This record gives sequence, C-alpha cells and structure tokens, in this order.
Amino acid sequence: MKLPSIVDSLIEKNESKIVFLILDGLGGLPMEGEGGTELQVAKKPNLDELTARSICGLLDPLSPGLTPGSGPAHFALFGYDPFQYNIGRGILEAAGIDFPITPRDVLARINYATIDRKGIIVDRRAGRIDTKENERICKKLQENIHIPNVEIMVEPVKEHRAVLVLRGDNLFGDIEDTDPQREGHPPLKPRAMDHESEATARLVEDFVKQAQEALADEKKANTVLLRGFSKHRGYPSMKKRYGLNAFSIATYPMYRGITRLLGFTVHMGANTIEDEFKALKENYAQYDFFYLHIKQTDSRGEDGDFQGKVNVIESVDKLIPIITSLNPDCLVVTGDHSTPAKLKAHSWHPLPVLLYSNFCRPDEVKKFDEISCIHGGLGRMLTVHLMTVALSNAGRLAKFGA
Amino acid sequence: MKLPSIVDSLIEKNESKIVFLILDGLGGLPMEGEGGTELQVAKKPNLDELTARSICGLLDPLSPGLTPGSGPAHFALFGYDPFQYNIGRGILEAAGIDFPITPRDVLARINYATIDRKGIIVDRRAGRIDTKENERICKKLQENIHIPNVEIMVEPVKEHRAVLVLRGDNLFGDIEDTDPQREGHPPLKPRAMDHESEATARLVEDFVKQAQEALADEKKANTVLLRGFSKHRGYPSMKKRYGLNAFSIATYPMYRGITRLLGFTVHMGANTIEDEFKALKENYAQYDFFYLHIKQTDSRGEDGDFQGKVNVIESVDKLIPIITSLNPDCLVVTGDHSTPAKLKAHSWHPLPVLLYSNFCRPDEVKKFDEISCIHGGLGRMLTVHLMTVALSNAGRLAKFGA
Repeated sequence: MKLPSIVDSLIEKNESKIVFLILDGLGGLPMEGEGGTELQVAKKPNLDELTARSICGLLDPLSPGLTPGSGPAHFALFGYDPFQYNIGRGILEAAGIDFPITPRDVLARINYATIDRKGIIVDRRAGRIDTKENERICKKLQENIHIPNVEIMVEPVKEHRAVLVLRGDNLFGDIEDTDPQREGHPPLKPRAMDHESEATARLVEDFVKQAQEALADEKKANTVLLRGFSKHRGYPSMKKRYGLNAFSIATYPMYRGITRLLGFTVHMGANTIEDEFKALKENYAQYDFFYLHIKQTDSRGEDGDFQGKVNVIESVDKLIPIITSLNPDCLVVTGDHSTPAKLKAHSWHPLPVLLYSNFCRPDEVKKFDEISCIHGGLGRMLTVHLMTVALSNAGRLAKFGA
Repeated sequence: MKLPSIVDSLIEKNESKIVFLILDGLGGLPMEGEGGTELQVAKKPNLDELTARSICGLLDPLSPGLTPGSGPAHFALFGYDPFQYNIGRGILEAAGIDFPITPRDVLARINYATIDRKGIIVDRRAGRIDTKENERICKKLQENIHIPNVEIMVEPVKEHRAVLVLRGDNLFGDIEDTDPQREGHPPLKPRAMDHESEATARLVEDFVKQAQEALADEKKANTVLLRGFSKHRGYPSMKKRYGLNAFSIATYPMYRGITRLLGFTVHMGANTIEDEFKALKENYAQYDFFYLHIKQTDSRGEDGDFQGKVNVIESVDKLIPIITSLNPDCLVVTGDHSTPAKLKAHSWHPLPVLLYSNFCRPDEVKKFDEISCIHGGLGRMLTVHLMTVALSNAGRLAKFGA
C-alpha cells in the first residue's frame, strides 16, 4: 500500500477545524539593496507572534530543485501526489473560468490564430483580439460545429484564449498539441500519443476542420491552435479521502477550479483579501477544512515588485487575528511555491511553513521567514506530507499498526 | 514517470556553466586531541568566504546510514539513481585503468592466486607478484586462450590484480564470483544467477580451464580468481539527459573511467591538484559542466592521517580563487562520501555541501564543515537531488506542470 492510501486508511472523524492560509508564491529571495527577502523585510507582528507558538519548517513543493506549476503545487498541499495527479493545461484553463468539468470531458486550451491562404500561421495570437470578439467567435464555433455523439463546448477566456471541451463516452486526452509554438509553419495535426486516444484525436481533427470552415471569413481569428489536451481523471475528493467537508475561498477562478476538482465547496464572490477573510468567518460553522488563497503575493513576485509583495504580506498580517479568534484546532500558514521578486517567476526554492495546534511542539523559531524557518522543528519536508501532519494535529489520524 | 525522467523532461538549454568540485571522502569525524573534524581544524579562508555567500547543507550519498562505494556515490552526484545504476567491480576496475569499455563487454576482476596440486588455494594473492610479472602473465593468457566468437582481453592492473574482458554478442554478466574469499578451498565454479547469463558462465568456465593450463608452469600465479562480473549497461549520458557538454578532470583513472561511462570528455595528463585546476581554466570555454575530482582527501582519510587530510583541504582552499575568478553560474563544493581519518575507511556519515549561484538563497552558515552545515538552507538532502538543484540554479530546468 502506498503512503497516501495508508494515510486515508487511518482517518478518524471528529469536530475539529483545520485552516490552510495559502499565500501564493510566498517564498522569496534577498534582493540587492532590500535588506533580506520579502518576508524578512515585511513587518508582520501577528504572523511572528503565531510563529513563536508554532512548529515551523521549509517545504519543497515537489522535490528538491524542481519548480512547480500551480496545479501540482496545490495537489501536494492537499496531500495528493503531485506527479501522479499532474493536470494538463486544458483542465487548468477550464478550472480558471469556473467551468464545471465532468469525468466525461477532454479539454484543451484554444489560442485563436491567423493563417494565410496557404495555411501558414502568420500570427499565433490573432492580433490579440479583444475578449468581446473572442466571445462572438466562440459562439460562432459552438453553433456551427457538429460531431456525432459528442457535445462540443467552446468557452471564452480572455483576448485570444479559449477552452475546448469535448464531452462524451470513451474520450481520451493523450493528444499532442497542434500549436507549433512558432509562426511561419502550418498548425500540426492532433496526433494521439497512445492507442486509446486515437479515436478522440480523429474527432479533434474533425473539429479543427469544421472550425476552419466556420472561421474562413474572419480577418484575424481564422484558425484554432490547441494545447494541453487533458482528460478529467475523477480525483478522489477530500471528503472521500479524509472525511473532510472542505471549503475553498479564492479570488482567482483557477484556484477555485482546482479545489472544485477535489470536491471542495467553492465560495463565490470574494473580490478582495478582506472579502476572503470575511467569507472564512461567515462559513466557519458549516465546514471543517478551510483553504484561503491569497493570489497577490504571487502576482507581485511575478511583476518583480519586491515592495509590492512586502505590502501584501503586511496586509495579510493585519487580518491574521480574524483567523486566530476563530481558534482553529490546526492552522497552517504557507504558500504553494516560491515566486521571488528577484526572479519574476515561480522558483525551486523551498518556502516557509508554520503549523499551530494545541498539540504542536513549538520550536525556537520566532520569525516567519525563509531563513529563520531553516531551524524549525519540521525541518525541510516535502509539501505532500503537510496534510498528514495537519490531520494528526487535528486528532483525525489513528496510529498505524498495533 | 519516475523522478529522474521528470527532471530530464524539463531540461532547457542555455550558456550557463556549472562546476562541481568534489573532494573525495570529504566528510570526517572529530579525532581525540585534534580539536574537531578535519574540516573544522583546517584553515580554509576561501572556502569559508564562499560558504557565507552560498546555501549549505548535508548530503546523504545513498540513504541515511548507508556507506557507499565510489561508484554509487559518484552516480548519485550526477543525479543517477545509485541503486539502479550500481556498477560491478569489474567495470570499476576497467574504468580504473582507462580501459575503453563497450556495451558488448562483460568484465570481471582477476586476482592471480596460487593453488596446490590438489587444486586447493594456498595463496589468494599469488605472493603479491609485482606488476611486471602481472603484465607478463596477462600477455601469456591473452596469447594462449581462444574462445570462439568472443574476444578475450586480460589487462594488468597492479601487483596480483587484473581485469578480464569478454567482448561479443549476447554476453551477460550475472555470474557468481569464483573467488571463495579464503584459502584452503578450491576456486568456485562460475555459476549464472539468471537464465540469460548461463551461456556466458560456460564461456567463463572455459576461460578458467584454459587459463589454468596456460599457467600450469607458473610457481606463484598458477590460477585466476574472478570477482564482480558486470555487464556494461549503456548508461544515458549527461549530454542526453541534461544537454550538458561535460568535462572530467581527475588524477586517478577510476574517476575518469566512471565519468567516461556517462559520456564526459575526459582530461588526461593531470598528475597534481595544481594540474587539475589548470586544466579547468584551460578548458573552461569549451564545456558547460565541469567535474574536478580531488583524490587525496580520501587517501589521507584511508591512511588514518588526520593532519594529512587537513593539509590537503588547506591546499585545495588556496586554489579556490582559480574557480571563483571564472565566475561559474553555479558552483558546488562537496565530496562523494565521508572518509574520516578516525575510521580509515569510507563511512555512512553525511557530508557538507555548499552551492553558490546568483539565485541561491544564502543561509546563516559561515564555515564549511560538518557541524556548521547542519544549519544550512539545503537541510539534509539525498545526494541524488543535488544535480536537480544545480540545474535549476543555472536556469536549465523548466517548471513542472501548468
């Protein structure tokens, strides 16, 4: 039996509450002239006070040295093997528009593009058509394309980006991208990577042909490039694995979508960090696991905006008392991965974590940052183990073996 | 997909340079009256200065508590699973004489030995005949032994030790040792450990018979004992796995041989540590991964010569500016395993590592030794992950998952 199944087999139910506060891209790097990492520079008295009562450490989201995408990093946070459950771009895009994915769906990302008369791609982004145009074109495709026994959905995202959903029986998603990733070439054929995906690949070929006919009179978006084909795999839910009624609070749709795949009840309508904390408080009685996702730490990191990321951390710190006054049985504060402003991108660096419960064993760490947490009692740990530690701290795991 | 394949699938190429400075047997133990470990006692201002700018930690070469041989310890350093790629003694000996091994070879180590008239071993080392004698006997065997469709090579090593190479098609190396490891017994029959090695085992039996006939008139070396049969497995190269043009600098042939198996270009002719650093400098433009191996730390450890090992560390420290002035994108200083003078042998103790790059996250460690590095930001890590961390620090790994 593999470790995740062992954990699942030990689950015991109780009335405890677990809160995961996830600051996206939390880990940082010292930047020239700033005097430390973003977390070291930020004034965060509430988080530091909590740190002193908690056990701390550093998390490797996937494995030392690997930089994760948001999908695998989040699966690891919830105790799902991030390599086994690596979800494709298609599913992630669909999650990102709150599209209700079902296990009968194969999904892909669409980029609208411009081809010339010979079928050569001259603009991979169709002149970045605006979202209104995108919506009109998606509707046009949806009305004009018909494939027997398969429901076709074409959902707009933003600018030139959309999502293709094929819904039906016996569809499979191991299909190569049709996007050649450069201009001056024709789109590629959708080729199946395994035997069982061959029939689906032929349906996709038919889709592309019909799409091109339907878009023949368009000036800019006259073809589709498809990427990241993926099949919904029917992920075991948090309820099924851990017996948890899980609640998800995020301002960005992609994170709502990921948690929806795992059976969370998803809160809608939070637009600000304050909204998110309010939603936690208002729904605290009804659920027993809470995921509260802060996107802005990652966004400012991606922008290379060191001080902006510091400011987000300080804003979140001010709201910490809202959580602590709820007195959760187990409170975890961490991120999904590092996004140092210095790198303007996700990175491989481990990131700090704190775990508070009445039964944690506090260490000597007094400040919540990447350097202080080296000395924490959790040591350096793979993120996938975090959920197990949280469950035990909440009294929800029986012992293994006699 | 297993982790090494995942790493390989994320490789991106760029112009960066990675240097691995490997002090063999680097890790030590405090010895009575010496005031610390070899690294703690050594004066090494350059390494300590580098440490202050680096991220540090402790490496377990294989798994906590396991003492590695040189083969698996080196495979782990280069990111190859040391259990999957454990190479036999035969290959290692052949590597150690710069013998050009091919994938058609089965290799074994030969010990020349003395048997009496009843075929009982009376001296397992044939009176430690000198290397000249060894060369004469190897030549004699090579001239007198003929096996259809198989090329036989008998290569002298040192004193009573040689290498047997069987080259041909469909040869396999899962064959038990013929050396009973004690005197007073006859040599054992070469027994196949699996079905596919049976034909090769019979060829080996024929080889032993012919060898005994050819050596019947020898006073000392009148038989051969065979150990560590191994088949060359066709290891994936550093170029193929990581896209790296790798360059190997070592004074000892065995380390050149190991890297040759992995497709490194091997520098020949370095006899001193100074030669090695000079070779690094002179070849720096042509390659992008450099392995510089210092043997003497291990040798002095094996001798139980604490002060000698300290002296080697101090000598290497003086040459560190030659590397840092090249300004590599990622510089790693560590060893393959511990060889404490106190133990006069390889040991299981984890050993210190430092990694410098412009994107590392420096920790608070200021001295490069076994005790200080406990507090490093890399924590305690398996050596096999080191290459992944180095590749990311050199900007050569894409992120995993969307």
